[in-house]
Amino acid sequence: MKILVINCGSSSVKYKLFDVADGDGAAVPHTPAAGVLERVGGDAVLHHTAGEATDDRRVDAPDHRAAIGAVLDALVHGDGAVLDRLDTIDGVGHRVVHGGEDVTDASVADDALREIIRRNASLAPLHNPPNLDGIDAAREALPEACHVAVFDTAFLTTLPPKAYRYAVPERWYREHHVRKYGFHGTSHRYVTLRTAELLSKPVAETNLITCHLGNGCSMTAVAGGKAVDHSMGMTPLDGLVMGTRSGTLDPAVVLYMLSRGLDREAVGRALNAESGLLALSGRSNDMRDLLAARDDGDERAALAVEAFIYRVVKYVGAYHLALRSVDAVVLTGGIGENSIPARRGIVDGLAPLGAVLDADRNASLAGSAGAITTAASSLSVWVVPTDEEFMIARDTARFVSGRQRENR
Amino acid sequence: MKILVINCGSSSVKYKLFDVADGDGAAVPHTPAAGVLERVGGDAVLHHTAGEATDDRRVDAPDHRAAIGAVLDALVHGDGAVLDRLDTIDGVGHRVVHGGEDVTDASVADDALREIIRRNASLAPLHNPPNLDGIDAAREALPEACHVAVFDTAFLTTLPPKAYRYAVPERWYREHHVRKYGFHGTSHRYVTLRTAELLSKPVAETNLITCHLGNGCSMTAVAGGKAVDHSMGMTPLDGLVMGTRSGTLDPAVVLYMLSRGLDREAVGRALNAESGLLALSGRSNDMRDLLAARDDGDERAALAVEAFIYRVVKYVGAYHLALRSVDAVVLTGGIGENSIPARRGIVDGLAPLGAVLDADRNASLAGSAGAITTAASSLSVWVVPTDEEFMIARDTARFVSGRQRENR
Repeated sequence: MKILVINCGSSSVKYKLFDVADGDGAAVPHTPAAGVLERVGGDAVLHHTAGEATDDRRVDAPDHRAAIGAVLDALVHGDGAVLDRLDTIDGVGHRVVHGGEDVTDASVADDALREIIRRNASLAPLHNPPNLDGIDAAREALPEACHVAVFDTAFLTTLPPKAYRYAVPERWYREHHVRKYGFHGTSHRYVTLRTAELLSKPVAETNLITCHLGNGCSMTAVAGGKAVDHSMGMTPLDGLVMGTRSGTLDPAVVLYMLSRGLDREAVGRALNAESGLLALSGRSNDMRDLLAARDDGDERAALAVEAFIYRVVKYVGAYHLALRSVDAVVLTGGIGENSIPARRGIVDGLAPLGAVLDADRNASLAGSAGAITTAASSLSVWVVPTDEEFMIARDTARFVSGRQRENR
Repeated sequence: MKILVINCGSSSVKYKLFDVADGDGAAVPHTPAAGVLERVGGDAVLHHTAGEATDDRRVDAPDHRAAIGAVLDALVHGDGAVLDRLDTIDGVGHRVVHGGEDVTDASVADDALREIIRRNASLAPLHNPPNLDGIDAAREALPEACHVAVFDTAFLTTLPPKAYRYAVPERWYREHHVRKYGFHGTSHRYVTLRTAELLSKPVAETNLITCHLGNGCSMTAVAGGKAVDHSMGMTPLDGLVMGTRSGTLDPAVVLYMLSRGLDREAVGRALNAESGLLALSGRSNDMRDLLAARDDGDERAALAVEAFIYRVVKYVGAYHLALRSVDAVVLTGGIGENSIPARRGIVDGLAPLGAVLDADRNASLAGSAGAITTAASSLSVWVVPTDEEFMIARDTARFVSGRQRENR
């Protein structure tokens, strides 16, 4: 079964073609081709790879429809072609950021769902509109395929009110939809399912604290396979210290900086694009740079690393009490999967809960899953590489299989 | 030694006269008189008590100078008079909210300190100016007394950078002084010293999580007697769910509500005065009302109580890891000292750390100090009534004694 996963940003289209072996897509996937089209609306360039073959081309992509057209063309024509005909694509999985309170699971991208994505665009004005453009363009180009939208927020819709409600005026919630939604849900769900497999436990009996630590960072408390708390908020600005995002902050700081002469756009830009590790270090939003600078004696880089780890550790402490018992803390994302010193710092901070670092395993583990705590640890910490595209492909395959059964 | 403690708000003056037995003021104090003058600048009224005697009077207090004059008059004239002459007052302790990064301890309220309080007024525009008015008026009326300013922020100045720095642009910190300061420091310090006594431990070896839970709420992680983390932020808006304050919130919510047509003042007013328990319950900012309503089946009141307790518990989890070992969790303030059901909820949430409620002690303890967990608990939870005025009196007595030694 061939599933194309599409992630449409405001000026880019990322895609990955999967050959999913069986109906529920649980087997390890074969990935015939993948790529990214950048600068939609400008001097667009497509970077396409298929196995050893690469196909880099300038393309004419004034809009997302043209961009999707160029992507599909690269799948059937040129050096990286992997398909004879486009109608061999069975399903298309679309990443969509915000489903609000309306969408609790992956859903067929029909007209009703289009309307829901559109309605929630005010909550994700930079993301939902291009996500919708991608759906429209792909539905038009591949009318026979089963189109499925997989939402970043869906896995987090199981949060209880005590976790998602802010203590703000009721009308802010009822009329303006101000609440915690949470993001990175596809990643948190993937590592939840994968970790339960690795622990040989039914997911419905598995309690985890999943930490997606990349340029964006979020943590989820997972009870019996369901999200019960989460560090991001109404937007992806909240929670952990991130590459360029501030994370949690006294909300009065926003009002204060507005009173000091900055306007709303400037404050929003500063908190989203000029804060986080970049602001604390004054140097870089990349953990690798900061660790190297710290080792060279840079004090601001050291503070950035320390503040990053400290906040991760504090969320684990909070979620440990929210969950009451924890089977594993799971690290994923670029930092979680690759940064040996950051992982060491996190495990050290979890020592009061019984985590003991296995230094050899921490040092050797890269790109694969495994525990980095000793077998005797009463709290185990795992590294589990995430795969959001595969999760989207699996979700899409579910709907394709369902349709195939109906058509039989 | 007679010490007058003064707390000057924008339209009120609270005061308490202490007779501190010895030089360092550690003994239990005798309180000859106390009271509050309300509606400074309007139809001012003074409520004064001295033992069994009360003296309620309308007074002419167009400003803080006149208000302080009326307070001093009630100490020497009328039904509640307790002093022959005002010059028997040895020291005056002034509560001041914000010392910024400049003041790490109680300090003699001289001209240099006046300037520091004035300079930090932009960080506490509602509090520092009336605090300063009170100091000026009292210094003029009692020129021979030793005037000492005791800062809400002082106890929190030991926070390390990883706890007090926000991950925001460096110039916000350097030029605009945006950082976590913390508040309620006098209360957290008082219960820290008192709890160390109760535990028979040197305070320098005592690790505590102190929870001031009143209409305003804050928590402090205390390592070896010093504050190392704290839930309030640059302002007292941050952290826990409070009576009418939101506590922690995605900072993007502020920007979002501004984009929905509210102005800066309206958002600030909503978050400070129309949020918290009041907003979640739609009913009251008083925990007693909410517990009663919850028991009558009110779901919104139940959510408010649940969200309040949940956030306290999560901060304990976070600070447990920040401290690595905890001698006791300490509850104080109106809710901490008196709310049996709220205390029960908190201790229940701390069960994963080994706290076991002693239901009888929890039910019987009101207005006095004691543990509410069983002796076998691996994490003990104490109730310790706070006394900020006495702490201010003790700090002031220290300076009076010092001056007396110098003059000998």
